[in-house]
Amino acid sequence: MNAEPYFEDFKTGDEFSSGEIEVTLEMIKTFAAEYDPQPIHLDEAAGKASIFGGLVGSGWHTAALTMKLMAQAKPFGDRPIIGLEVQNLKFIAPLRPGDRLSAKAEITKAWRSKSKPMGFFLLSVETMTRDGTVILSQVWTVILPARE
Amino acid sequence: MNAEPYFEDFKTGDEFSSGEIEVTLEMIKTFAAEYDPQPIHLDEAAGKASIFGGLVGSGWHTAALTMKLMAQAKPFGDRPIIGLEVQNLKFIAPLRPGDRLSAKAEITKAWRSKSKPMGFFLLSVETMTRDGTVILSQVWTVILPARE
Repeated sequence: MNAEPYFEDFKTGDEFSSGEIEVTLEMIKTFAAEYDPQPIHLDEAAGKASIFGGLVGSGWHTAALTMKLMAQAKPFGDRPIIGLEVQNLKFIAPLRPGDRLSAKAEITKAWRSKSKPMGFFLLSVETMTRDGTVILSQVWTVILPARE
Repeated sequence: MNAEPYFEDFKTGDEFSSGEIEVTLEMIKTFAAEYDPQPIHLDEAAGKASIFGGLVGSGWHTAALTMKLMAQAKPFGDRPIIGLEVQNLKFIAPLRPGDRLSAKAEITKAWRSKSKPMGFFLLSVETMTRDGTVILSQVWTVILPARE
């Protein structure tokens, strides 16, 4: 693939897979302390007393790690992944210490701007643990330059 | 408000407002290095060459900071904000160094589980800069215990 591909270089059904990241208890607490300071994400006793039965990571941590995995996967080469909106973001299961996450994405729709040399994709993105359990799913609308 | 309120203690139209947070260039780069390592979020020159005309923060950083502002606002007292899903998450404008963000949320729908002592809310959440410009909007589905 060209390092700076265009909208026309992709089509519906194209898939992208990420590498893997192991999520430690320390990573979960570090994210939570900065971005989601709730006891269920910071304190083992509070997690145990919750509906989750143990300390769990923030859903926004799962989402941020998904972005990291996708950014590293570079589906559009050197072009940035620029998201316009997200639909159907579902926190299916909580992030737990020791989880090894990976992400995959599939283009489910592609359309070109009528007025500008840009194209849009719907990307169906899933984040899963090593046993294949999907813990986060979402649909991104992303934009990419199109040929003139 | 009771420190551990129930579903029945809230109604459609209830609003919550957060405090404010100032977002520095260093904060933007720290988040991006860890969770969205793309040049437009890390390198001034790459940002300037992009459609944004300057280095911008990750949209996921705006989302994570919104969670922080809402967690600190404690709309449900000592009960955690537990999100099930997010709809219509729109990155309306990029996060820029120096922005001072705040968030507000409104309950737009409330319904009780038919089978369990739990209730659900739709929370319409907006994140804005100090001049009132909304840069992120989204709708959360959250769950709260209901009275037996």
